[in-house]
Amino acid sequence: MTLKETFTHTTWPDASIVEDLTRLRQKNPLVHCVTNLVVTNFTANVLLAVGASPAMVVAVEEVGQFAPVADALLVNVGTVTAIDAGAMLEAARAANQAGTPWVLDPVAVGALSFRTDVVQQLLGHHPTIIRGNASEILALAGEGSKSKGADSTADSSEALDGARSLATRTGAVVAVTGVVDYVTDGNEVVGVPGSHELLTKVTGSGCALGAVLAAFVGVQDSVFRAAVSGSAVFAIAGERAAHDARGPGSLAVALVDHLYLVGREGDEAPVSST
Amino acid sequence: MTLKETFTHTTWPDASIVEDLTRLRQKNPLVHCVTNLVVTNFTANVLLAVGASPAMVVAVEEVGQFAPVADALLVNVGTVTAIDAGAMLEAARAANQAGTPWVLDPVAVGALSFRTDVVQQLLGHHPTIIRGNASEILALAGEGSKSKGADSTADSSEALDGARSLATRTGAVVAVTGVVDYVTDGNEVVGVPGSHELLTKVTGSGCALGAVLAAFVGVQDSVFRAAVSGSAVFAIAGERAAHDARGPGSLAVALVDHLYLVGREGDEAPVSST
Amino acid sequence: MTLKETFTHTTWPDASIVEDLTRLRQKNPLVHCVTNLVVTNFTANVLLAVGASPAMVVAVEEVGQFAPVADALLVNVGTVTAIDAGAMLEAARAANQAGTPWVLDPVAVGALSFRTDVVQQLLGHHPTIIRGNASEILALAGEGSKSKGADSTADSSEALDGARSLATRTGAVVAVTGVVDYVTDGNEVVGVPGSHELLTKVTGSGCALGAVLAAFVGVQDSVFRAAVSGSAVFAIAGERAAHDARGPGSLAVALVDHLYLVGREGDEAPVSST
Repeated sequence: MTLKETFTHTTWPDASIVEDLTRLRQKNPLVHCVTNLVVTNFTANVLLAVGASPAMVVAVEEVGQFAPVADALLVNVGTVTAIDAGAMLEAARAANQAGTPWVLDPVAVGALSFRTDVVQQLLGHHPTIIRGNASEILALAGEGSKSKGADSTADSSEALDGARSLATRTGAVVAVTGVVDYVTDGNEVVGVPGSHELLTKVTGSGCALGAVLAAFVGVQDSVFRAAVSGSAVFAIAGERAAHDARGPGSLAVALVDHLYLVGREGDEAPVSST
Repeated sequence: MTLKETFTHTTWPDASIVEDLTRLRQKNPLVHCVTNLVVTNFTANVLLAVGASPAMVVAVEEVGQFAPVADALLVNVGTVTAIDAGAMLEAARAANQAGTPWVLDPVAVGALSFRTDVVQQLLGHHPTIIRGNASEILALAGEGSKSKGADSTADSSEALDGARSLATRTGAVVAVTGVVDYVTDGNEVVGVPGSHELLTKVTGSGCALGAVLAAFVGVQDSVFRAAVSGSAVFAIAGERAAHDARGPGSLAVALVDHLYLVGREGDEAPVSST
Repeated sequence: MTLKETFTHTTWPDASIVEDLTRLRQKNPLVHCVTNLVVTNFTANVLLAVGASPAMVVAVEEVGQFAPVADALLVNVGTVTAIDAGAMLEAARAANQAGTPWVLDPVAVGALSFRTDVVQQLLGHHPTIIRGNASEILALAGEGSKSKGADSTADSSEALDGARSLATRTGAVVAVTGVVDYVTDGNEVVGVPGSHELLTKVTGSGCALGAVLAAFVGVQDSVFRAAVSGSAVFAIAGERAAHDARGPGSLAVALVDHLYLVGREGDEAPVSST
């Protein structure tokens, strides 16, 4: 059985993706983010552009009050400190208890002991979606990590088996980001042609995708479908942005523009990614 | 009595606004910012562009030494934690004691208990200007909040009475940001045609306006006039930027460019906003 | 003896600089950053663009494990708090012990007591490179500070003697940033025509240069040569970016683009800076 046989490809502008993006913009979900300090601004701008309402509420004194009223929560451990960890665990606990769907982005898990321990504790609060690169997913799946800081040294397809077992074990939908993004619930796998290679030169592009997945799962009961739609919208915006950019600086700007423009009036000729 | 009868409109390039901007660039005020972690970079770039010198000094060990030597202070509670709150209160206390004018940006006050309490304590140090959206100003005025995270659900004109009573009660000039920005000292009200709607898709645009008001009040004895001038300069830059942008990513970049370009040589044909 | 007689000028595309940039991109050094919260995003994007792999690991629980495996470390005290100071000292200690070269960026040292004390403690861990503006270098050299927040009030050439004595005393290579950047090991001095004046309106441009120096020293045994090459690459990218930009917003974007583009295929006609 080849990889090709095990999953289907989905790309913008498939009908369900367009429908999910339209719903997101109608509902304007409130996305509670406890994310790393490198990407807060970029993440907020990405969420606003796609049609969500970001709220970076990070104090341990506030997260327990806020996560239950948000439509979705994102927890990203990229620059986690002990104080942050307390807030993340409280946010995840409150989200899980209140039924707020939440996305875990386990940046560089496996590479450093402290965050690896924090991530293991976060898993106890049942993330709805886990998004990571291949190295991170392999580390979480217990298949060893080859990460180099926040950058993956493995290809996303190598992490497919690990992603499936991680999904089965945790009950989360797992999204592995790479040249192709794979989304799996343990059984089904959908591949989304990932973003242009240049996007790996924009810090926080993966983290921003995690936030976009949170936005989609905040307005869509099917977690699997939300993760596929969010990945596809991000990928098409990334592809269009890479087409416009001459380097990573202009790419980051264009990505935010295209996340805003995609699917709006005038978007008559979506680029085909296949 | 209609709204139109209760206040005057002021826009760039009214003479007093041009004069205040010129003075700001001559004096290059040192603006001490204790702001939220989402907007630090954007705020610093906005201040540099308009002609001020930003200083993000945030440690409780340092703010008391710095606020007295700064020309103005900005306190923004967007991502306030317990540690931040201590620094904010110390900065506000020191500024108030030393006569350094200071701007309070009470992000999402009323929506979350912890920050609402912090903001109430900050009010005890007599902010010179309070800048917020309609929901925040209404919450502070004790007229209930309808905020959704950091985004207002009320129109700025709805908060006009609340703004007036808040100004009267606190002695601060109050600036309500929205489709029209209103500035009031409790008696007089000036309306400034606000920025383009797309600017609400740029995270921290309101926070950056708060910083700009601090820069203007750092070089201008009339607090009311400073708040009007700062709002008008920000609005014209925002309008020009929106004209150039194709989405929120390029808008944020263009806003910084236009805050730098406005009123400089070659700026012969200011856009009329009315 | 005139200044001109005491040092040589080096600019892109001198052969050694091109060689160092090529090596950097081949080796993709892992640069551990403990920097200020204003510039984290910009610094990470600058490092990715030039060809390095940034890792913003900031928790005191993690820095001691990470600095030894990184190729270089950057410590920047721009927004240092007591908690940050603990992490910075631990990172510097671990780097020094493991032989990881590290860059100290003593933002606003001399202007505020707390950070001045932190910087003095950091010096005990033997930074490989110290990068600062003239005011900061003068303050460290014990020749008094005239800083205004993070901005220098002195010219880089005024700090040349101070830089030399600081280098001799600490054993670090000292880079003074200004209209001309000077790099010295206490004996030799090389001047690099610095970046366009407009770059002083982009927050964190100096901080980003410090990160670039860390990237270069991570792949080059000669610390002095690494500091010269890094300064020259940053300067040429800054000059090209200033040529393209219409204000500080577009300048920041173009700088990241040009740090990516410089020296790549198609870069046939490097601008001469002399």
